[in-house]
Amino acid sequence: MADSVSLDQFLAAAIDAAQKAGEVIRKGFYETKHVEHKGQVDLVTETDKRCEELVFNHLKQLFPNHKFIGEETTAANGVTELTDEPTWIVDPVDGTTNFVHGFPFVCVSIGLTIGKVPVVGVVFNPIMDELFTGAQGKGAFLNGKPIQVSTQSELVTALLLAEAGVKRDKATLDDATNRINSLLTKVRNIRIGGSCALDLCSVACGRADIFYELGFGGPWDVAAGVVIIREADPVKIWTSHH
Amino acid sequence: MADSVSLDQFLAAAIDAAQKAGEVIRKGFYETKHVEHKGQVDLVTETDKRCEELVFNHLKQLFPNHKFIGEETTAANGVTELTDEPTWIVDPVDGTTNFVHGFPFVCVSIGLTIGKVPVVGVVFNPIMDELFTGAQGKGAFLNGKPIQVSTQSELVTALLLAEAGVKRDKATLDDATNRINSLLTKVRNIRIGGSCALDLCSVACGRADIFYELGFGGPWDVAAGVVIIREADPVKIWTSHH
Repeated sequence: MADSVSLDQFLAAAIDAAQKAGEVIRKGFYETKHVEHKGQVDLVTETDKRCEELVFNHLKQLFPNHKFIGEETTAANGVTELTDEPTWIVDPVDGTTNFVHGFPFVCVSIGLTIGKVPVVGVVFNPIMDELFTGAQGKGAFLNGKPIQVSTQSELVTALLLAEAGVKRDKATLDDATNRINSLLTKVRNIRIGGSCALDLCSVACGRADIFYELGFGGPWDVAAGVVIIREADPVKIWTSHH
Repeated sequence: MADSVSLDQFLAAAIDAAQKAGEVIRKGFYETKHVEHKGQVDLVTETDKRCEELVFNHLKQLFPNHKFIGEETTAANGVTELTDEPTWIVDPVDGTTNFVHGFPFVCVSIGLTIGKVPVVGVVFNPIMDELFTGAQGKGAFLNGKPIQVSTQSELVTALLLAEAGVKRDKATLDDATNRINSLLTKVRNIRIGGSCALDLCSVACGRADIFYELGFGGPWDVAAGVVIIREADPVKIWTSHH
């Protein structure tokens, strides 16, 4: 496990990296409406790649011995095995469909695992200018202010966040909408936001009470958010599992 | 039909009224997490009433002969018939569940009908500081910048906005999720935001391509948004129907 000073350094570095990527995301976000479909696909790919490079380069300069797992690199080179070494797990642009359409739930997600446990998380939405941060034992924050999960204990007054996923075969789709049907009889209502990392942050700051997504894209979708939720949970139920 | 100078006056007045209500909504939005359930219900009711009063009083002072229809007043006094007179149709807080939970899609919606046709619309989200405005023949704007609906012509690349509604009887619920199931085979993906007026504005500015809500609350949910969408449609298909 990293000492407290190191965790502070890792968190500060991740915030700097997220802000660099955020500038690129913000620029692309406002450009995408002005290009046609083929151009949009290129813009997403280009923004994804540029942001992952920016984040990786920033962190590699500071921590040359750390390992790196990124959505883009994995897409290009195949799966990288997670080891006990400090490993940065990065989604350069989470909420790609939102990015293309200009729907404002878009973010960069940067998580760090040590001994395979996520210990630092930064999720930055540059469109709404919301920076979610967390580090093990140090709490979770939105733009520097402490956040907490909601204290809802009744399903009937709970707001549910979910994602419809991307698979469209009949079995998966029927399961997805049957699940929504059955949950809607129990919770207050449902929201679908389109970014797994931001959904996790919405739970962390109590905007939603529950979130699920089946078959999300990969560890880069959750590595940062899980730290932020865990640290935003005043009861800290999660820490007992380590 | 109102002349162009009057429309400008009506629009400016609606913007001022929306900003007054916005301050009250913003204040309540950040308080609601700190009170328990009973307190939340009171806070919603209080914010709703205060905002409707603020908006009505502001507009009545300027236009003492105009008519007024508001969600709160209607809830208290029953349905007001829509006449050909200039009539302000107001939802003081749209996205009530979001307001309670702190989910950032919350707004005040102010529409004006003349001869039963919506001609001025203002939708203000004070949490994200987004002011959507429109007036007949004068275009639609987000924070003063012109907006347009998307140019999507293919369902397969369209982003769909929808609402799950509030009815939870089995027939309505099955219809709702069957509809989502069948649409998900056709569109790119679905988002559920929780505010009808803001959903309309999302379509107006091209963040989403399609929106539907069955059994929405009342004319106050759509009176403003419909002007904003119509004015954001470069093809102006709507005007041919008047």
